[in-house]
Amino acid sequence: MTFPTPETWLAHRISYGETDTMGVLYYAEYLHLFERGRSEFIRARGMSYATVEERGVMLPVREAQCRYRSPARFDDLVQLRVRITEWGRASLTFAYELYSENRDRLLATGMTQHACVNASGRPVAVPEWLRGLFTSESPA
Amino acid sequence: MTFPTPETWLAHRISYGETDTMGVLYYAEYLHLFERGRSEFIRARGMSYATVEERGVMLPVREAQCRYRSPARFDDLVQLRVRITEWGRASLTFAYELYSENRDRLLATGMTQHACVNASGRPVAVPEWLRGLFTSESPA
Amino acid sequence: MTFPTPETWLAHRISYGETDTMGVLYYAEYLHLFERGRSEFIRARGMSYATVEERGVMLPVREAQCRYRSPARFDDLVQLRVRITEWGRASLTFAYELYSENRDRLLATGMTQHACVNASGRPVAVPEWLRGLFTSESPA
Amino acid sequence: MTFPTPETWLAHRISYGETDTMGVLYYAEYLHLFERGRSEFIRARGMSYATVEERGVMLPVREAQCRYRSPARFDDLVQLRVRITEWGRASLTFAYELYSENRDRLLATGMTQHACVNASGRPVAVPEWLRGLFTSESPA
Repeated sequence: MTFPTPETWLAHRISYGETDTMGVLYYAEYLHLFERGRSEFIRARGMSYATVEERGVMLPVREAQCRYRSPARFDDLVQLRVRITEWGRASLTFAYELYSENRDRLLATGMTQHACVNASGRPVAVPEWLRGLFTSESPA
Repeated sequence: MTFPTPETWLAHRISYGETDTMGVLYYAEYLHLFERGRSEFIRARGMSYATVEERGVMLPVREAQCRYRSPARFDDLVQLRVRITEWGRASLTFAYELYSENRDRLLATGMTQHACVNASGRPVAVPEWLRGLFTSESPA
Repeated sequence: MTFPTPETWLAHRISYGETDTMGVLYYAEYLHLFERGRSEFIRARGMSYATVEERGVMLPVREAQCRYRSPARFDDLVQLRVRITEWGRASLTFAYELYSENRDRLLATGMTQHACVNASGRPVAVPEWLRGLFTSESPA
Repeated sequence: MTFPTPETWLAHRISYGETDTMGVLYYAEYLHLFERGRSEFIRARGMSYATVEERGVMLPVREAQCRYRSPARFDDLVQLRVRITEWGRASLTFAYELYSENRDRLLATGMTQHACVNASGRPVAVPEWLRGLFTSESPA
């Protein structure tokens, strides 16, 4: 499997509150998990999304999508793979793959597309420092 | 049963996403429901909490408590009773009672205590207009 | 605007707990709202999703997607339009349009694709009674 | 500070989806965090709550309480201290203390009281194996 680098992995334990009556991770919770994944992606490169915002750049989600393949259950430790798959002039796209603990079973795939806007919400070109940071290998 | 007036009732339908693996309304969701209840309490008096905030008054929660008596399940229509039970100089306390659809079975009781603070987070005495509003009968 | 009937509308008040630091409805909450919408779609036809499950049919989400156009904020009353846009042999697809209170501003669009499975999770053809029910006009 | 042992600590990163319009961790999310904490408490003793349930014992929450002292914000790493403070014949009580990253600032305190019930929801005496397990020191 070829997966464009750089990538970041996040481990996450499924809590009771994230499950539903069917006994599985509720479908909206995957988007929470994706958000944790991209925050970790940024943090792995030495910055936090909070700092990105302080620098006047916000990355609101324009579109989100998830394909559910196999359910996750309470207490499962799941593994999320995060990367950036597309750069627009004023946008970028994250892709996600959710795996079981041993990374041998694919549970879900998804994407989020983000606009790049300034503090007043106007679209702006992706700053060079952000693109450089997000395309760098994680130091760790 | 004596229940100090004024009071406000809120009906709420339990969604799948609010339930957990045990098939019941997850325990943290009661606090979401309480928040909906006190917003409705304010709205029933002709204002919204958003407007309260715009007037420079915030009511952050200092303490929350809930006693769970009987579970609610997916698709249940539940009925929440909201009132104010205590006024401090710079605080107030909401009490909640959650009932089944026909209001004949008590599912939970709870309370939230709120500080009254200004926009910079400093405690301030409860403004007269707010106290007047919150102790008025709902026009409806 | 042509929108295949039958359709169902659901009104929903944005709570504080559904918003995030940016002051807007958090992006995962749209999927919660979509779920409320399709439950209401079923209820408007005289059944509840709980009953559908009791009859041995489950409709787990296979894919979800949302396009965010304009944010919703705390205390906004939003209007969700729900319909079914596609029928497979063992699947169906819901489409959603989220509008502002007066239905004059489109806030988001989305879809969820559902498998039709039996109690043991095996794909089964959509039962005739379910298809008949879901394609009927709401009595109300 | 005297804090009855055994205790377990859980580190947790605040996500965007857990915050609200005020820019802080939403008050209901503390209960989610408490649940993560007690699951970790059990796991640290070599079992998982899922296994406890498989053995026919459930610990539904009868009461929950939280006192909010200082807010947590997006991207904060918080530290949760968990212990058991009370044993009844058919109940037990967890206590929680939430701290800032360096454990030098107390953000919140709370408790949850749990009934001990069997698979059909009837109260049962706390089994010896469970009490033994929960009062043991974490091996790690």
